[in-house]
Amino acid sequence: MYELGVVYRNIQRTDKATADALAALGSATVHEAMGRVGLLKPYMRPIFSGAQVSGTAVTVLLHPGDNWMMHVVAEQIQPGDIVVAAITAECTDGYFGDLLATSFQARGARALIIDAGVRDVKTLKEMNFPVWSKAISSKGTIKATLGSVNIPVVCAGMWVTPGDVIVADDDGVVCVPRAKAAEALDAARKREANEGEKRDKLASGVLGLDMYKMREPLAAAGLKYID
Amino acid sequence: MYELGVVYRNIQRTDKATADALAALGSATVHEAMGRVGLLKPYMRPIFSGAQVSGTAVTVLLHPGDNWMMHVVAEQIQPGDIVVAAITAECTDGYFGDLLATSFQARGARALIIDAGVRDVKTLKEMNFPVWSKAISSKGTIKATLGSVNIPVVCAGMWVTPGDVIVADDDGVVCVPRAKAAEALDAARKREANEGEKRDKLASGVLGLDMYKMREPLAAAGLKYID
Amino acid sequence: MYELGVVYRNIQRTDKATADALAALGSATVHEAMGRVGLLKPYMRPIFSGAQVSGTAVTVLLHPGDNWMMHVVAEQIQPGDIVVAAITAECTDGYFGDLLATSFQARGARALIIDAGVRDVKTLKEMNFPVWSKAISSKGTIKATLGSVNIPVVCAGMWVTPGDVIVADDDGVVCVPRAKAAEALDAARKREANEGEKRDKLASGVLGLDMYKMREPLAAAGLKYID
Amino acid sequence: MYELGVVYRNIQRTDKATADALAALGSATVHEAMGRVGLLKPYMRPIFSGAQVSGTAVTVLLHPGDNWMMHVVAEQIQPGDIVVAAITAECTDGYFGDLLATSFQARGARALIIDAGVRDVKTLKEMNFPVWSKAISSKGTIKATLGSVNIPVVCAGMWVTPGDVIVADDDGVVCVPRAKAAEALDAARKREANEGEKRDKLASGVLGLDMYKMREPLAAAGLKYID
Amino acid sequence: MYELGVVYRNIQRTDKATADALAALGSATVHEAMGRVGLLKPYMRPIFSGAQVSGTAVTVLLHPGDNWMMHVVAEQIQPGDIVVAAITAECTDGYFGDLLATSFQARGARALIIDAGVRDVKTLKEMNFPVWSKAISSKGTIKATLGSVNIPVVCAGMWVTPGDVIVADDDGVVCVPRAKAAEALDAARKREANEGEKRDKLASGVLGLDMYKMREPLAAAGLKYID
Amino acid sequence: MYELGVVYRNIQRTDKATADALAALGSATVHEAMGRVGLLKPYMRPIFSGAQVSGTAVTVLLHPGDNWMMHVVAEQIQPGDIVVAAITAECTDGYFGDLLATSFQARGARALIIDAGVRDVKTLKEMNFPVWSKAISSKGTIKATLGSVNIPVVCAGMWVTPGDVIVADDDGVVCVPRAKAAEALDAARKREANEGEKRDKLASGVLGLDMYKMREPLAAAGLKYID
Repeated sequence: MYELGVVYRNIQRTDKATADALAALGSATVHEAMGRVGLLKPYMRPIFSGAQVSGTAVTVLLHPGDNWMMHVVAEQIQPGDIVVAAITAECTDGYFGDLLATSFQARGARALIIDAGVRDVKTLKEMNFPVWSKAISSKGTIKATLGSVNIPVVCAGMWVTPGDVIVADDDGVVCVPRAKAAEALDAARKREANEGEKRDKLASGVLGLDMYKMREPLAAAGLKYID
Repeated sequence: MYELGVVYRNIQRTDKATADALAALGSATVHEAMGRVGLLKPYMRPIFSGAQVSGTAVTVLLHPGDNWMMHVVAEQIQPGDIVVAAITAECTDGYFGDLLATSFQARGARALIIDAGVRDVKTLKEMNFPVWSKAISSKGTIKATLGSVNIPVVCAGMWVTPGDVIVADDDGVVCVPRAKAAEALDAARKREANEGEKRDKLASGVLGLDMYKMREPLAAAGLKYID
Repeated sequence: MYELGVVYRNIQRTDKATADALAALGSATVHEAMGRVGLLKPYMRPIFSGAQVSGTAVTVLLHPGDNWMMHVVAEQIQPGDIVVAAITAECTDGYFGDLLATSFQARGARALIIDAGVRDVKTLKEMNFPVWSKAISSKGTIKATLGSVNIPVVCAGMWVTPGDVIVADDDGVVCVPRAKAAEALDAARKREANEGEKRDKLASGVLGLDMYKMREPLAAAGLKYID
Repeated sequence: MYELGVVYRNIQRTDKATADALAALGSATVHEAMGRVGLLKPYMRPIFSGAQVSGTAVTVLLHPGDNWMMHVVAEQIQPGDIVVAAITAECTDGYFGDLLATSFQARGARALIIDAGVRDVKTLKEMNFPVWSKAISSKGTIKATLGSVNIPVVCAGMWVTPGDVIVADDDGVVCVPRAKAAEALDAARKREANEGEKRDKLASGVLGLDMYKMREPLAAAGLKYID
Repeated sequence: MYELGVVYRNIQRTDKATADALAALGSATVHEAMGRVGLLKPYMRPIFSGAQVSGTAVTVLLHPGDNWMMHVVAEQIQPGDIVVAAITAECTDGYFGDLLATSFQARGARALIIDAGVRDVKTLKEMNFPVWSKAISSKGTIKATLGSVNIPVVCAGMWVTPGDVIVADDDGVVCVPRAKAAEALDAARKREANEGEKRDKLASGVLGLDMYKMREPLAAAGLKYID
Repeated sequence: MYELGVVYRNIQRTDKATADALAALGSATVHEAMGRVGLLKPYMRPIFSGAQVSGTAVTVLLHPGDNWMMHVVAEQIQPGDIVVAAITAECTDGYFGDLLATSFQARGARALIIDAGVRDVKTLKEMNFPVWSKAISSKGTIKATLGSVNIPVVCAGMWVTPGDVIVADDDGVVCVPRAKAAEALDAARKREANEGEKRDKLASGVLGLDMYKMREPLAAAGLKYID
């Protein structure tokens, strides 16, 4: 349940070096490195392809059709942050457009993750301000009801606490809890370290069946080949 | 992000009298009383109509297509509990049927809330064991991967902490945090207290426009009547 | 596009005898009788089964998450009316519960058709106040923004003009324009008149192939039987 | 890919005793007994609850919005059959109502499984003619285009060959291939045989953890209990 | 309800200068300027990004899986028109491909808005003929049943009258009624006029909180800052 | 129903010249040429636009959340093949990424068609390895349960037999049965042969109404023009 009408000004952000380093590893590798948890639902899609970012979460809870708190969260953004916006009910309205993006970008935000809709997507692309959202919609919003800023929120099925790290790219959006960020970075780097070697082997025609030594467990599980 | 492979045996349950008293108020009134928050997504539907329950949450995190942890959570159930099951990815498989329901009921569980599918629904109805789920499906599950029991989970878009109160009826499922339960009960009772009087007035033909004194604010907002 | 902030008090309702007589024919027969048009989208489902109604439409346009105008439309209801509620954007919130139903019923409304959610469905069933809706949800609404009453609206994909006839049953909801209502009633009655005879023939084992003389056109279209 | 414009009159039906005996076991048990395969997608729902049937499949392939072939398939029904209707594209129209049901029932059909919509559901319930469908819709269909009867079809994601056994109940719809039906019946009966004993144990408070001897493999997988 | 089998040849188109001028303002600004109404449902997406058009609506009503009337509407197109296609039931078939696009383009059409599917999207992009649709599908259609041309239709939830203005871009599709077009253009231009200034302020780091003077109303609504 | 735990090593592939030649005709033309059948559901979308391929199907059946068999199918790929992956239940997990793509590409696969999710889509695009899928998701999979390779499968609603031809482009995915491939190629080429001439006529302003001689049948069907 959410606390309404509050703005937490002091949040503990994940160490910047760690938060920044996770971008290069990508959402899939980071998600695997954490034990296949942390992923927001796959309906969250980038409004343009190719962006790959990480940053510290500042969160905002909004009511359906009401983007008032977007202006409140703008003030809490610090360089390197990513805004994570949750809604108290299903909504596809366009909460965010080029003016808010200008403000967010001026404050140092790297991206917006929103479980609703956005608009002005052509301009957002020109500004190179990436957004991962559930929908794109011209539908505007009102400014009438209080939500909250920097409380923990559920965004697209995932629990996000202010200061956590968000990693987002064309594959989706992952949340890395602050307490696990260093460990996740380590594990992700280890996963990636030997990917080059694996890729070379596979490219040369070596089969995963052999490289991963799967033939025996497959036979043990009962796999039968029929000619 | 979730901690995997752990079972918390000692959780702090909401005071039993409070947890039990919330059932009679219903999910809609309780949801309103908390400031219109706490509701699980409306795709969560009862497998049969008419049940109205409340109880303390014991939680279980499951992997898609794998119900192994359902047997683990069974041991943690105490009389008056409601099991809240979350899945790490979208899944409609039938995680739960009449055998598990027999076990849950024997342990004193009042209901299951599951963000996936269930089966044997005809028998569950005969047993009067209510379930709110995303789907009904004969599709069975395996028992291969560890999840967790009694960690906080996101179920159908809502954050549920073990020991919170769950209120469920034909209108949906609401989660009341332990720390807010007494206050929510109070507020819900107050909301309900004067509903009878309101209902009598409305039944006699008095309009909400007059009873709630809305004519002036509507006019102030610019409402125009055209004959 | 909608005109906002207006309430039309004088609408031309379809002749009462015609509007009332359509209920008995049912949504499927009436829909066919009009040339297979007029049906609201099939996601509109009754909150309880068995109700079969017809009546004259009074319409209300609402904003997402805001049910203020529900109280305004209540005043415009006359006995025999069915309220048709459209929303300016997708929404599943519970706009309507037992108190509003009490008021609508006191005014003589026969049903509500709403392209959104409702709540208190157990009580609505006890009151025998039928609703066809897109969702059931405990989620409450606010009272902040003006919509309109008795303007033409699009509800679940169908254009509904105040005074049109609504026919609703377990199969769905059909809108019959006022100008076509008498003709539709006639055509629907004719369709139904010979259904009894057809049913008897089919029940005795006569095939539709023979009763409708389809064998020749099927052969002409190229149908081949293979033994 | 489908062969269009053909009706196969002679199909090899599963042995009647086997086909009939599967009903009592239910879709979930039969699905498990076959190795968790054969289930139609869970969006296939009964139009009324409580029916539990099995029978031999006669199939019909229809075009969207066109139910002409429904009359052709009626002639191919033999007592004990269940009609399985597939559509060449997504469609929710109401292909089937009380007149066709009267004809199907007169021919000895036990049920209809259709990956589209049906109508007259109140009457179908009164007739006790069960249908599992994707939708309920008043929307009627035309009679213009040839499909086929008794060719193999994909219905709700499952391959159904004429003469296979269909098992359907409140949990869903399973297809049992003719060649596997005897074996599936055997396996399903074995699964069910010791369910009574298991249920008694679980009802007495024995845990699945102990009954299924799961404690050791759970510990081996790394499960940790925290007090 | 729709009138079937008719083609209205003489429609009153919005004044060309007005219709043409709306494109530059974009769907979001125009939608806001009209009071946040007029938007087609956000599932309507462009088949390629970057197009931004406006024009006068010619409408066509089609049956599911039948594109016969597409050839009829082609004849009614005048330079500057946008074809708006509605279907009498849900359908994702590919009603429109490169041949029809060639014909529409030769007649002067600027775009197609269709509540169904289209195909040949690679060629349509090469031709620079923009389409906003619900789906992309290779599925072809037949030519068997009459619909209508230039009657008012509901397309993706919005009422569109022939001659209205359609504004479409990457954010979605808006319908501006002919009678409101001049006023909407005015209002949209006013909205846009001071956007440049606002954007500069926000880019310089001024907060919306200050620029829009929101601090006081937020405090009045009860917003609390916590350090 | 599916046979589990088997790998068929010897499948009869469609003649290579025929399989290869179908790519140039595209999914829409091939689908039409077969009589409007063979199309996978339109939710199957390319992960990047512009790819247009054909090839012979090797099939793999997977369990939800488990991609073990992807390594087994890799060994069965021959140059010119397209892998068709079906899942035994609904799943959006990312079964396939850049490492598997490297292996598939090294074996000569031209594409993947999967009724689930994939990841590493940016890299897949750089590798020019096209995929048509239901979802994009970072969510990883385990390797625990046997499926099968080169059995007939239902993928996105279509029956695919190993050795059939798959044709895929921006419009969707079509399956051409081996036995019909030569005939489909012929028919598709005939359809295409006179498209150039038609396109020229339409581009010059000739109407489809005249080119296809539709005016008379439209009038016969009752179409009325109103001035």
